[in-house]
Amino acid sequence: MAGRLADIGEFGFIERIRRGCLVRKDGVVRAIGDDAAAFVSPAGELTLVTTDLLVERVHFLRDAAGGFALGVKALAVNLSDIAAMGGTAQAAFVSIGVPRDCPLDYLEELYRGMRHLAAEHGVNILGGDTTASKTDLVINVAVTGSVREEEMLRRDGARPGDVICCTGNLGDSRAGLHLILENIPADTPELAALVKAHLLPRPHLAEGRWLAACGAATAAIDVSDGLAADLGHILETSGAGAVIDAGALPLSENLHDFCRRFGKDPVDMALSGGEDYVLLATLCAERAREAADRFRQALGRPLHVIGEITGTGRLEVVTPDGRRRTAEARGWDHFKTGADHGDTRQA
Amino acid sequence: MAGRLADIGEFGFIERIRRGCLVRKDGVVRAIGDDAAAFVSPAGELTLVTTDLLVERVHFLRDAAGGFALGVKALAVNLSDIAAMGGTAQAAFVSIGVPRDCPLDYLEELYRGMRHLAAEHGVNILGGDTTASKTDLVINVAVTGSVREEEMLRRDGARPGDVICCTGNLGDSRAGLHLILENIPADTPELAALVKAHLLPRPHLAEGRWLAACGAATAAIDVSDGLAADLGHILETSGAGAVIDAGALPLSENLHDFCRRFGKDPVDMALSGGEDYVLLATLCAERAREAADRFRQALGRPLHVIGEITGTGRLEVVTPDGRRRTAEARGWDHFKTGADHGDTRQA
Repeated sequence: MAGRLADIGEFGFIERIRRGCLVRKDGVVRAIGDDAAAFVSPAGELTLVTTDLLVERVHFLRDAAGGFALGVKALAVNLSDIAAMGGTAQAAFVSIGVPRDCPLDYLEELYRGMRHLAAEHGVNILGGDTTASKTDLVINVAVTGSVREEEMLRRDGARPGDVICCTGNLGDSRAGLHLILENIPADTPELAALVKAHLLPRPHLAEGRWLAACGAATAAIDVSDGLAADLGHILETSGAGAVIDAGALPLSENLHDFCRRFGKDPVDMALSGGEDYVLLATLCAERAREAADRFRQALGRPLHVIGEITGTGRLEVVTPDGRRRTAEARGWDHFKTGADHGDTRQA
Repeated sequence: MAGRLADIGEFGFIERIRRGCLVRKDGVVRAIGDDAAAFVSPAGELTLVTTDLLVERVHFLRDAAGGFALGVKALAVNLSDIAAMGGTAQAAFVSIGVPRDCPLDYLEELYRGMRHLAAEHGVNILGGDTTASKTDLVINVAVTGSVREEEMLRRDGARPGDVICCTGNLGDSRAGLHLILENIPADTPELAALVKAHLLPRPHLAEGRWLAACGAATAAIDVSDGLAADLGHILETSGAGAVIDAGALPLSENLHDFCRRFGKDPVDMALSGGEDYVLLATLCAERAREAADRFRQALGRPLHVIGEITGTGRLEVVTPDGRRRTAEARGWDHFKTGADHGDTRQA
């Protein structure tokens, strides 16, 4: 539908976007349309809350992504945080600040993307805020979830000897971002898959739940800033070090092709790329092998063993030819570095 | 402290603002510093969630307000939504998008304002997101709360014959906004009080809890868009009309002084002003008088009876001289009207 928000007004817009927002009715007492949403939380479980703010020209270019992909991503990054706690996602709350030049079509696609991903994971969109913005499109998504306290995956539980695992490929998203930023057409299925990995990340909620319930995980985080930076958060809060086996990193054939063609190093892409939104977890050594087997049986996907927690306090990388180097483990800090892409959640 | 975010970096900033964010430790399992916050919700109560997005040059002028007041207001408007549900506020989640030219001092004041109000109401600041913005300062606050389902105050329960009450003065905030927008110095205590009513609203959480627990309230909303518009939301969802007694509206002496001096009508200011953040509630007629008496005893403040719910479907205003007119009851819609101030919450 063509037009701008001014044509249908704010209330008309809210009426339109609320359709399809409620995918589970049980336990929902107030959805969009009262002062606050109200819903039942599972008895005896902790309430989880996470929030992410996306600002145009900092986190996304309006034209590069398209509304649908932007909607998917805005929700996916929050669901990924719930996954990293081992939780079940409950409800999403979407605030948008809309500049006058933003077409209604784009906003409808944005909500279609969010509703699509929300429905896939049984998440209700229960509220939010719609307002104007002077220059940039602004989207804040907050997501609630729940988890049993004894199952919750935290960052600070990694101990020397623990096995480091991840739940999916690393580096694909960074390669896709490179193609977008350099305006390189994704004219093969391989390149298109990399762009898709960047634009339409899949939150690993099922993987997070499985790891939380298996009882063997000692720490977890989702890979948003890059393997080195996010593992760095686990090491810092756990007071530990780690050694990563570069030869064991799950790197896709698509990434290898990309790196050959554009002269990049796939291990570097995996270590420092970011926005993979796979989970990184540490498991008790004695239970890791059995857990990886059962993970594959349960989810039909491998749990990749990529390294080990150490007592060194450093993050080291061992290459297949036996060379060992220390990697930079600090998080992306775009205020300090002067770069403008990327952000860091407080929680 | 002088400087910009770039001087201390994002993580340095988070370290600084998290101090004093946790005012109640009981039941909080993860605060700022993990993938999501995690906390215990009271057994058997509903979880409430509300969120508000404030964008520079749309909702506030950075210099006019000052950081402290902006922080107070960003949190207060959300606490007011929890109050309007009859809930107890639990935790706040603060996302900010910061332009490069925003001084660190301003951000510190912003968080000082939020922590000040949060502490006053026993609300923990448990998470958020800190990121860059190209042009405008952007603040999204999400707040969680809880309420027993049978006590929850909703918008749609008003019935003909119910008495309409409000918990505080109307119109002061609009007068304060006028002084700010017209650059009129608030050079008397009376004018300063009006500016304060606009910049530092007090969320009526105690009033909301009392109304929820008293058992006589049939509907409630907080006055953010103005008495006529917000009562309009109750009437629309309840399928009712109302008559407001203009002579009974709680109008401060400061507002009367302001209106005499600047040629305004105090009843108009009360009806269409907005941002009062008092509660508007409807009570069963037979229990209203007793409830108002007990309200004053319990809270030391009056519950003002200002009108009655009718079956007309219209919002009417009766003036002290007996004239009756129909008021415009639709909500503020800044996309459709073309104005830029104000916003409307989806929930």
